Amino acid sequence: MLKWLRNFAALFTGKPAAALLHELPETIRLLFARRSCRSFNDEPLLDEEIHAILEAGRFAPSTVNLQTWTFITFTRQQWHGTFDRPIPFKGCYAIIICADIFRLKNFLPDLQETPFVNLSLGIFNAGLAAMSMTMAAEAFGISSIMLSETGRAGLLDCAFLKEKLALPESVLPLTTLVLGRGGRRLPGIPPRQPREAVIMPAAYDRQASSHLGSWYEQMFIGYKLTHPLSSFEKQIAHYRTKMVQAEVVIRDIFLAGRKSRG
Amino acid sequence: MLKWLRNFAALFTGKPAAALLHELPETIRLLFARRSCRSFNDEPLLDEEIHAILEAGRFAPSTVNLQTWTFITFTRQQWHGTFDRPIPFKGCYAIIICADIFRLKNFLPDLQETPFVNLSLGIFNAGLAAMSMTMAAEAFGISSIMLSETGRAGLLDCAFLKEKLALPESVLPLTTLVLGRGGRRLPGIPPRQPREAVIMPAAYDRQASSHLGSWYEQMFIGYKLTHPLSSFEKQIAHYRTKMVQAEVVIRDIFLAGRKSRG
Repeated sequence: MLKWLRNFAALFTGKPAAALLHELPETIRLLFARRSCRSFNDEPLLDEEIHAILEAGRFAPSTVNLQTWTFITFTRQQWHGTFDRPIPFKGCYAIIICADIFRLKNFLPDLQETPFVNLSLGIFNAGLAAMSMTMAAEAFGISSIMLSETGRAGLLDCAFLKEKLALPESVLPLTTLVLGRGGRRLPGIPPRQPREAVIMPAAYDRQASSHLGSWYEQMFIGYKLTHPLSSFEKQIAHYRTKMVQAEVVIRDIFLAGRKSRG
Repeated sequence: MLKWLRNFAALFTGKPAAALLHELPETIRLLFARRSCRSFNDEPLLDEEIHAILEAGRFAPSTVNLQTWTFITFTRQQWHGTFDRPIPFKGCYAIIICADIFRLKNFLPDLQETPFVNLSLGIFNAGLAAMSMTMAAEAFGISSIMLSETGRAGLLDCAFLKEKLALPESVLPLTTLVLGRGGRRLPGIPPRQPREAVIMPAAYDRQASSHLGSWYEQMFIGYKLTHPLSSFEKQIAHYRTKMVQAEVVIRDIFLAGRKSRG
């Protein structure tokens, strides 16, 4: 019970530690304060803000400067026109972020031979661009969330997204970045794994999972607090079903890379 | 010749566009000004700065808050002890960023069934953490570069890194983030693909590659400017050799995920 209470408390106290730095630079403060938001108001975003956010993505770093990403952008109206429903969480603007080698194939035909390398670096670079756009939004006081499966708009629904958007075979939609204002932030903090599980000085620690017990319990407690009628077990079973479906599609994308031209 | 001159000029003028925003927030300025640096001086980083940079990575967002990343950290001395050479570009500190599902397997045994989903989201999340740490460094005035193959420290040398660090089979090293001060920044800007090739309003544009002609020429001109004795063609051939080698390794990691437990 004491352990449970400690893990309960950790959900409200588990902030990033930077005690020794008295004056944190603005960007560090934003990185530490950033939270995924699940409700937005109707206040619109400025065109100039959207433009700068997309520029932050376009100017992200990438492997050999190949820019292996595509940003498919949606106003509320455009999202409704495509998906026949609102942007999840009533967001104001949405960006579907894809790993995309397709448009490079004409220029670098050798890429045909290495689909696993291409997709791996394509996904990693898309992550760099996604975080750049998230931080650009934070800089304007715009809240955001990156979707994994809510509203069928993340990697776990890549088959649905590929069909709806008629994406070429080799283009992999990874997430929808939902943007908006007035995001209500829950008081707790999604529990982070402890430093000793994640940060390994000079050598890999195969026993790192032994540090995850408290984190795992915090995940269960935190889920129950935000979803009192459900449980993390049920949610894991739900994810599992969708992951098994997505597995077939993603596997095909990787394995088809070699023979297909899109 | 006029076209060549225009593409030459673009290497020095292709900045992110945000003309309409008179006062850019600090974080946007950092995102737009960030450059990969290839030379560092001997001025050390503060422990507090390194700590905050790693915290920025640990508190990055991730799919279902699974934090599918590992950061293996190296001082100059530790890097030398492991690799018997200096950190590439004489960096002051290095972080090998890995996609890592390995330590979650005890907690979420279902993950055994879906290696392609796991690795895809693991790589994407690692990208989010990598960009968070890069931006945290920028906030302290610390320069950085993420390596793809220089010094055998990126994804294209994942076989070498896996062996040197005795990584479990399912752990994929993606890049080394090199940090240091005094990074000399070259005057030009690695050319970005034009907006119309990358940002697609509400629908995927299969003709996007038709916008890449100038960008591709700029890549060749830019490479010649920074490597007068070589050429981008030669460099592509070099990457190709390494990519074909890495392909076998990465493919094995994805395909082995299902049967292996480490």
